[in-house]
Amino acid sequence: MKNKKADFSEWYSEITKEAELCDLRYNVKGFVVFMPWSVISMKKMYSVYERELEATGHQPAWFPALIPESNFHRESKHVEGFTPQVFWVEHAGENALEERLAMRPTSETAIYQMYSLWIQGKADLPVKIYHPSQVWRYETKATRPFIRSREFYWIESHNAFATFPESESQVDEDMRMAENAIFGHFGVPFIFFERPQWDKFPGALSTFAADTMMPDGRVLQLPSTHLLGQNFAKAFDVTFLNEKGEREYCYQTCYGPCISRIYAAVISVHGDDRGLVLPYELAPLQAVVVPILKKGSEKEVEKKAMQLSDSLSKKGIRAKADLSESTPGFKYNQWEMKGVPFRIELGAREAESGELTLVRRDNGKKSKVREGELADFLSSESASMLADMKKKAVEEFESRLSKAISLKELMGELEKGRLVSVPFCSNGMEGKSCAEELKEKCGGDVRGTRHGRKEKAEGNCVVCGKKANALVYVARQY
Amino acid sequence: MKNKKADFSEWYSEITKEAELCDLRYNVKGFVVFMPWSVISMKKMYSVYERELEATGHQPAWFPALIPESNFHRESKHVEGFTPQVFWVEHAGENALEERLAMRPTSETAIYQMYSLWIQGKADLPVKIYHPSQVWRYETKATRPFIRSREFYWIESHNAFATFPESESQVDEDMRMAENAIFGHFGVPFIFFERPQWDKFPGALSTFAADTMMPDGRVLQLPSTHLLGQNFAKAFDVTFLNEKGEREYCYQTCYGPCISRIYAAVISVHGDDRGLVLPYELAPLQAVVVPILKKGSEKEVEKKAMQLSDSLSKKGIRAKADLSESTPGFKYNQWEMKGVPFRIELGAREAESGELTLVRRDNGKKSKVREGELADFLSSESASMLADMKKKAVEEFESRLSKAISLKELMGELEKGRLVSVPFCSNGMEGKSCAEELKEKCGGDVRGTRHGRKEKAEGNCVVCGKKANALVYVARQY
Repeated sequence: MKNKKADFSEWYSEITKEAELCDLRYNVKGFVVFMPWSVISMKKMYSVYERELEATGHQPAWFPALIPESNFHRESKHVEGFTPQVFWVEHAGENALEERLAMRPTSETAIYQMYSLWIQGKADLPVKIYHPSQVWRYETKATRPFIRSREFYWIESHNAFATFPESESQVDEDMRMAENAIFGHFGVPFIFFERPQWDKFPGALSTFAADTMMPDGRVLQLPSTHLLGQNFAKAFDVTFLNEKGEREYCYQTCYGPCISRIYAAVISVHGDDRGLVLPYELAPLQAVVVPILKKGSEKEVEKKAMQLSDSLSKKGIRAKADLSESTPGFKYNQWEMKGVPFRIELGAREAESGELTLVRRDNGKKSKVREGELADFLSSESASMLADMKKKAVEEFESRLSKAISLKELMGELEKGRLVSVPFCSNGMEGKSCAEELKEKCGGDVRGTRHGRKEKAEGNCVVCGKKANALVYVARQY
Repeated sequence: MKNKKADFSEWYSEITKEAELCDLRYNVKGFVVFMPWSVISMKKMYSVYERELEATGHQPAWFPALIPESNFHRESKHVEGFTPQVFWVEHAGENALEERLAMRPTSETAIYQMYSLWIQGKADLPVKIYHPSQVWRYETKATRPFIRSREFYWIESHNAFATFPESESQVDEDMRMAENAIFGHFGVPFIFFERPQWDKFPGALSTFAADTMMPDGRVLQLPSTHLLGQNFAKAFDVTFLNEKGEREYCYQTCYGPCISRIYAAVISVHGDDRGLVLPYELAPLQAVVVPILKKGSEKEVEKKAMQLSDSLSKKGIRAKADLSESTPGFKYNQWEMKGVPFRIELGAREAESGELTLVRRDNGKKSKVREGELADFLSSESASMLADMKKKAVEEFESRLSKAISLKELMGELEKGRLVSVPFCSNGMEGKSCAEELKEKCGGDVRGTRHGRKEKAEGNCVVCGKKANALVYVARQY
């Protein structure tokens, strides 16, 4: 494997290929085939996220993949933002369609016309719905598997409320779900930023987006949640009858965790120079038994290896005995590259004594475990493993945070691959020209102000020198 | 509710609307919005089916939704069969695409080019992969929600083997999975037929398809599995190196359980004149507590209702207390219409004594159950419930089977809404013209010969009068 820190881009390309995560040879540009080793984990990630959504009162629904063009035109910012990225259907069979249809790039314009029908009175509110789905965007930026492709796998959640404060609470709930799922279960640290006004979701009042740090020091945007106010409600006539008997527009939010991209973060943050390091909960295979054969005892050891993996499987642990013809060393490398959390080394002595040698993937730690205690050991050790993986990831993430008070300092910090806070004139539209100048001069993107911290800016904007009104974070981005 | 037997079509329309299963008001013809009450059940159906697939060694993968037109042209029968039904993408953003792209109507032509790359030697075989997905077909037949729409939810499974007998075993395994999932878990009976040669999957050697009976006496096709032989392997160069060191074409199968359509069968087969009857495993809500309030003890009873539903929820049972303002009678009707398997009627006496009254949705049976034994009771009674639902469904299904030995008799049986076996000249291409004549004269479709029974035909073909070579089944179809 390549060196992850020194050459992350090469490492990433190699791991996605060698671990058979995806195949880039599909014959439509920007589309990839997601192979079993990644899909099994991403399906588990979907389950984790959907449990979070359901625990907070969301219900699943499935909306169509095709949206009439005229739907987009109902919200002027939204049509501007999305139609340049749309795959258009103009024919079906031999027939030209009367109106062209968009393959959904996101579903606000499909869903909110239904909300307009579904919501009548206060009793119909709140509406909290999620749709696990794919979306298609004709990206002009360079694509990278899982990180950015023209087809991606996500969940979109669309909520409607009677009051603005409820919609604000929803945005907080969306952020907590991200914390529970992405950090809690997958061990990936991030910060939620309130994006600058010039970089919000088209049609939203404000956008809150999570950024994680990739090993090359660039930020990767994870889920974002958007306060839509009444913009879309007005465009799609989403109203309810209030206590006074008047029609009132709903307050809406939408939220989009992109599972395929979060997977990119999981493999990039935890991986090392030997390959993938997968959280136990997500690993397609949680433990692999590698028999170490010596002449005379081959059959016995292989039989024991099978018994062990069978007994683990019966306990719901995803286990396998690798009885292929390669050497044990080759197998160790292979399964380490695939990120299997535990390896059980089984020689004649272990087969006989029932005292097994276990090796943890993340830190190489060896443990001796009695066969009867194996399942319990995996259960407790996997919890320690996740805690250790989180600790390491947080340390790495925090080491990437820094500060600057001038453009020159900022440039130096960005060169080191950091996420840098700087005093800035404004996170509102007034700051846009400074952000453009900043981008031009040091290649960094303004990610916005840190959510929930009320960090105060001191001094002057690093670009225009006016009194700073916002402490914004800057990084190079994916 | 309408009468299911007397007016199934009306009943079906009413239940899909009243139980909020889908919304037909979406503004693209043939596309519907699938609402939470159906989606929650269909997601559970996906899980059941995917467990079957994984237990038989299948792994999940995700293939692109867009397929270049030229891929279809590699298999001549396939292009003929599918391209008239395709939604075509010709523009992306402002750009005209070099080659138009099909929204997948099925994925053979997307997947097998990848298999050609993935399969090299015998060690790579068998390949057993499934993809839970949506497909899009520009149907010209009348659409009905869940039964036939232009977007549907299915699983496609695509397997490749070194030998023909292995591919035959796969087709058997596919049929067993259908038996386990659709009859075993969902309680819907069906028969697998080998479809006539003129009605097989475009590009296959032979097609085996499950037919169930809808309440109006028409058959609905459930999963089909196809023996592809080497047809697609030749078209897409799917080969392996055999023991002699020669390149050999793989033998392939594909399988397509359509979850949204199986759901149509579940609600149609089990439903009654009061509404849905859902199998316990699939029900979004498994037990509803309805408080019966009398003055003076309202608070106490409502509190108890909440406690009960909370304690069931904690045990993993999907339960809810209905504390809305309607009368108990209204609530009974409402939840019966929604198909909730168990209703718990809770008055002041029950709240105090802890002896609860439970009512089963399928047969109205009342039971008295001690509060502490509630979860155990639900577990055992839900098993009896599924068994009773199956028994009833099988009796109904079997009452629909009949025989005829002349066109006149056949017509009479078809009028009664039956699935009728008749002596027929051939299930091969030679029988096609007789099938067309039969269709014209009595509106019945030849469904093929019963799989796995080796039923012998006696007498003469009901159409041409030649010696019968096949006992085929005929019915009116969806």
